[in-house]
Amino acid sequence: MPVRWRYALIPSDAAAVRELVSTTGFFSPEEEDIAVELVNETLLNGHTVSGYEFVFADDPGQPGRLLGYACFGPIPGTVSSFDLYWIAVAPGLQGRGLGRDLIRESERLAVAMGATRMFVDTSGRSQYQPTRAFYERMGYREEGRLVDFYAPGDDKVIYARDLANQPRSLVVEE
Amino acid sequence: MPVRWRYALIPSDAAAVRELVSTTGFFSPEEEDIAVELVNETLLNGHTVSGYEFVFADDPGQPGRLLGYACFGPIPGTVSSFDLYWIAVAPGLQGRGLGRDLIRESERLAVAMGATRMFVDTSGRSQYQPTRAFYERMGYREEGRLVDFYAPGDDKVIYARDLANQPRSLVVEE
Repeated sequence: MPVRWRYALIPSDAAAVRELVSTTGFFSPEEEDIAVELVNETLLNGHTVSGYEFVFADDPGQPGRLLGYACFGPIPGTVSSFDLYWIAVAPGLQGRGLGRDLIRESERLAVAMGATRMFVDTSGRSQYQPTRAFYERMGYREEGRLVDFYAPGDDKVIYARDLANQPRSLVVEE
Repeated sequence: MPVRWRYALIPSDAAAVRELVSTTGFFSPEEEDIAVELVNETLLNGHTVSGYEFVFADDPGQPGRLLGYACFGPIPGTVSSFDLYWIAVAPGLQGRGLGRDLIRESERLAVAMGATRMFVDTSGRSQYQPTRAFYERMGYREEGRLVDFYAPGDDKVIYARDLANQPRSLVVEE
């Protein structure tokens, strides 16, 4: 799928991320606010201070129009563990490999920054079964299930992938 | 064990927490800094803004001299899950039930604030085997083991306890 990759934030990303995240229907208004907050904090203070890195998949014909994006960064208090905080693909484009490309591009950049493990959390609710299946296809393994974490009846499922022993060109090889 | 319970912070707690935490030998200088930061942030902005609650076990003869302490609070993004961020007992006083009293007192206050689950993280390293055994005796169950999380060879182990279906007077009953 043709996209233009972009790693530097532009001011319009705050609004673009809010629209993208809200149209997926997977996130609460509070979660949308957090996604936007990470963009704004990084626009204001830079990647090094904020601890957030971004991968944007722009529409090749319309730079700044987001087809998908991912946000990740080093986990404070760890030596080389990274967290994939956000990954979202525009609803009309799902199922065409963009999620895979976003996660592999995030992993490639994380490895370049010294990552050896990538972690990602999601909900145990049935609505998120496709999300969990996606992470599993991407090589992520369930390492924890925190019962009733988000709310009674809503578990937190923690996935992890070893990045230290993977082929160097993660995107190309898949 | 005779202690005087205290829940309101006083300015000397920043130094007292640093000394207590460092004498246990269980925490890195970075972790000590974080423990003190939570105290200072709460002194500055109050519990409601900081999200941190404290239980101090003062020496009955010397108020402000800490025999042990715990720090906990609601986990952002969850409905009723709480995290036990810190628990520490002065080295000479360990094994006399103060850790149990600190955790039960934290749970009692958390329940009063609406908690239904308490989570606590620790390391999977052998040095922390007594810590893990302590949480298990306190009714905590391992719900996740994040391999190589803190560093290669240093797993994060996540414990949880259901607080919704426990006797009302948690401290008294144990």
